[in-house]
Amino acid sequence: MQAVKAIVNGKIILESEAVLGISDLSISRGYGIFDYFKTLQNRPIFWEDNLDRFFHSAKLMDLPVPYTREEIKVQVVQLMSENKIPESGIKLLLTGGYSSDGYSIGKPNFIITQHALKRDIAAERRGLKLISYDFHRPFGTVKSIDYSMGIHALKKAKEAGANDVVYTQNGLVSECPRSNIFFVTKDGKVITPGNDVLRGITKMHLIEIAKGKYDIEERDVTVEEMRNAAEAFITSTTKNITPILAIDDIVYGSTPGPITKKLQAQLERIIYS
Amino acid sequence: MQAVKAIVNGKIILESEAVLGISDLSISRGYGIFDYFKTLQNRPIFWEDNLDRFFHSAKLMDLPVPYTREEIKVQVVQLMSENKIPESGIKLLLTGGYSSDGYSIGKPNFIITQHALKRDIAAERRGLKLISYDFHRPFGTVKSIDYSMGIHALKKAKEAGANDVVYTQNGLVSECPRSNIFFVTKDGKVITPGNDVLRGITKMHLIEIAKGKYDIEERDVTVEEMRNAAEAFITSTTKNITPILAIDDIVYGSTPGPITKKLQAQLERIIYS
Repeated sequence: MQAVKAIVNGKIILESEAVLGISDLSISRGYGIFDYFKTLQNRPIFWEDNLDRFFHSAKLMDLPVPYTREEIKVQVVQLMSENKIPESGIKLLLTGGYSSDGYSIGKPNFIITQHALKRDIAAERRGLKLISYDFHRPFGTVKSIDYSMGIHALKKAKEAGANDVVYTQNGLVSECPRSNIFFVTKDGKVITPGNDVLRGITKMHLIEIAKGKYDIEERDVTVEEMRNAAEAFITSTTKNITPILAIDDIVYGSTPGPITKKLQAQLERIIYS
Repeated sequence: MQAVKAIVNGKIILESEAVLGISDLSISRGYGIFDYFKTLQNRPIFWEDNLDRFFHSAKLMDLPVPYTREEIKVQVVQLMSENKIPESGIKLLLTGGYSSDGYSIGKPNFIITQHALKRDIAAERRGLKLISYDFHRPFGTVKSIDYSMGIHALKKAKEAGANDVVYTQNGLVSECPRSNIFFVTKDGKVITPGNDVLRGITKMHLIEIAKGKYDIEERDVTVEEMRNAAEAFITSTTKNITPILAIDDIVYGSTPGPITKKLQAQLERIIYS
């Protein structure tokens, strides 16, 4: 097997040799942002959207991006041609940089990594279970590296026999740690939280696809609506649309719902064909 | 000037050469905990308390500490004798370790660093200004590396002509990003938030010192109480007791209050003599 390469501050190196000095603000203060897209048959999927969001996240967290958008795209293509992994996930990471005083933002370090990514079709067909977890991600629209709560909560989910959590707080549903959540109401409306949550790329494309075909609303979604929904599903780059069969004691069904399955088929046509 | 050394996973190396591979969970997911104490004339101050809290933080974040308490103390003493910095801050950092899948906790990396630390007596005598900021730190009792909000909020404070922020949420005051907060009520009571905030070592020692001399209460403190207080101050390892002259439009005074000054004198006797 060929050793995977990464790009650190513009230089291609073996990923196993890619390091950051310990004064980087990601290590000392958990400070950084990233973005993530997949490639299928060596074709980056929706990466223009990911680049939009990457620059948005960087701006909100006061991190100057050391390369232009075009330079980043050139680096991505360069890494893809080095690694030759047709089906992959590509991550752009921008850290707080080497801090002079352990707290102030430095010159950000920019890292691109690529790993093989295999679609979990079984999970997409079967569905998952979630538990709700009282939390709201700070900097909702920013893809921050801060996953302390997500990692901690995943352990709680597993202890409860679930696959992951969905964040709820003050009567509202927001998102899952690594995906957006949608509900189908009993009268066939498709609703998804729209305020102060990550603008998931799969989510935004699904909304485009569903417009016109379904009554789709991106707005505050209450815990009450979660409880009364007929169907639920999550969206993410790695999970596409994955049905949710249950949240806590709320059971949506033992198999994925009909509208969820129709949306899956429509999204798959866009992404995989 | 002699080059500062650090200890990474038990090995003494130049701090400038201390690195972590990019798959460490601090870099990819902002996951890690730390603790911090000072040395005065080569004597670690309150480090037993810091070690207690370090193990508490590690446990709550599911990070196995790769050394015993005694082994860590031996390493700290070793680093002190290498660096010969009599007045210093020593940081113990425990990261999420190299993750196999970019999300699961690995074998934590343990790093000890030491830097010269100079007391800012001028600020302790003069006092600081804060602004309130709507946030509550997740994992309140854990000294997590996650300072995204603290770093972001500091910028807002500076824009408002203040030195830092104090977190408030749902009508309650919690803490500052890097210090605990106390108020003196108009009838001379000393109050400080007691639930789901960091158990600051300076805070806990101050409470011990003040007991018996003052009516001191560690419990929920409301924004209303912050507004009506006669005096305010913060405590931390680096700032000892530093008076707060104003928060937002609340002005406590142009100079530090009398009880704040008395408590400063009492704390200084314990720490500096």
